[in-house]
Amino acid sequence: MKAERTLNSRLVYEGRLIRLRVDEVALPNGRRTVREVVEARGAVGIVALDDEGCVILVRQYRRPAGRELWEIPAGTLEPGEDPAACARRELAEETGFTAQEVRPLAGFYTSPGFCDEWMHLFLARGLSEGPQAQEDDESIRVARVPLADALAMIRSGEICDAKTVAGLLLVALRPGQPVP
Amino acid sequence: MKAERTLNSRLVYEGRLIRLRVDEVALPNGRRTVREVVEARGAVGIVALDDEGCVILVRQYRRPAGRELWEIPAGTLEPGEDPAACARRELAEETGFTAQEVRPLAGFYTSPGFCDEWMHLFLARGLSEGPQAQEDDESIRVARVPLADALAMIRSGEICDAKTVAGLLLVALRPGQPVP
Repeated sequence: MKAERTLNSRLVYEGRLIRLRVDEVALPNGRRTVREVVEARGAVGIVALDDEGCVILVRQYRRPAGRELWEIPAGTLEPGEDPAACARRELAEETGFTAQEVRPLAGFYTSPGFCDEWMHLFLARGLSEGPQAQEDDESIRVARVPLADALAMIRSGEICDAKTVAGLLLVALRPGQPVP
Repeated sequence: MKAERTLNSRLVYEGRLIRLRVDEVALPNGRRTVREVVEARGAVGIVALDDEGCVILVRQYRRPAGRELWEIPAGTLEPGEDPAACARRELAEETGFTAQEVRPLAGFYTSPGFCDEWMHLFLARGLSEGPQAQEDDESIRVARVPLADALAMIRSGEICDAKTVAGLLLVALRPGQPVP
């Protein structure tokens, strides 16, 4: 394995959701370089698929994008929180839906060049609707969309969020499914 | 549109690949909160598919992950660089392959909760092999993998990078393709 040797590590920022550190490293070829690393809490995203083949999407303003985006329900892990429990909690808070079954779909780094955020994706089935309980700083609209329409929203660019693209395609392509 | 009003914006860090700013904002409901925003250069990822149905994957050490990852070839835009030109450049530098055709596949935010990075995904066809020209701080292995095997690597967790998961699934599901 071609690991890099850490020569120096400096914590630049420690905030609400992220930390930023800047590492000076020695590469395997002996050269030195700087690696900027954003440390983020783990996150979850939930593809909630109902018995009619519709998925639950949420729309909210995202400051880094400067606009509202369509996404699957998602959120960040509380310290020590089990990812599946977090998925159930975020699904209920953001959409009001509870799920009989929540199972792992995939996991990935969202941007491993400079960020350690790990996204746990879950598939939620057996949905029941209840009241939303959004956090104070959230303002979220909820929509029920046929999976085929959501896939068309990916192709048209209307859905443009990595976890949402990956999650919907994973569900569309899961073994035993008809072609979308 | 439920935009947030900026009360104060503070640049915390300006580095090689990213900047970090911390915004104090007023929410539509009047409450105040803090938004941490990582500003990143735009990025490109390339699904390079050859005439035998194989994709080109690269393996390299990623410091935020603390290990080597399998990914599609990728890189960050130089200031003012056209994304398709960047895709051709990164494909050639990292893998040695040049492509007759490079066309847009999708675009998305990698982690829009706290980061503005936009990933431009391209599909590259008509591949020809040439010499690699990796940058000084890169140490990259290249593999040619049947698309079906790459999809199995997603299901097994061996591929765990958002752009790679999304890009491979988009290519597997593109219209007119046989089911993988």
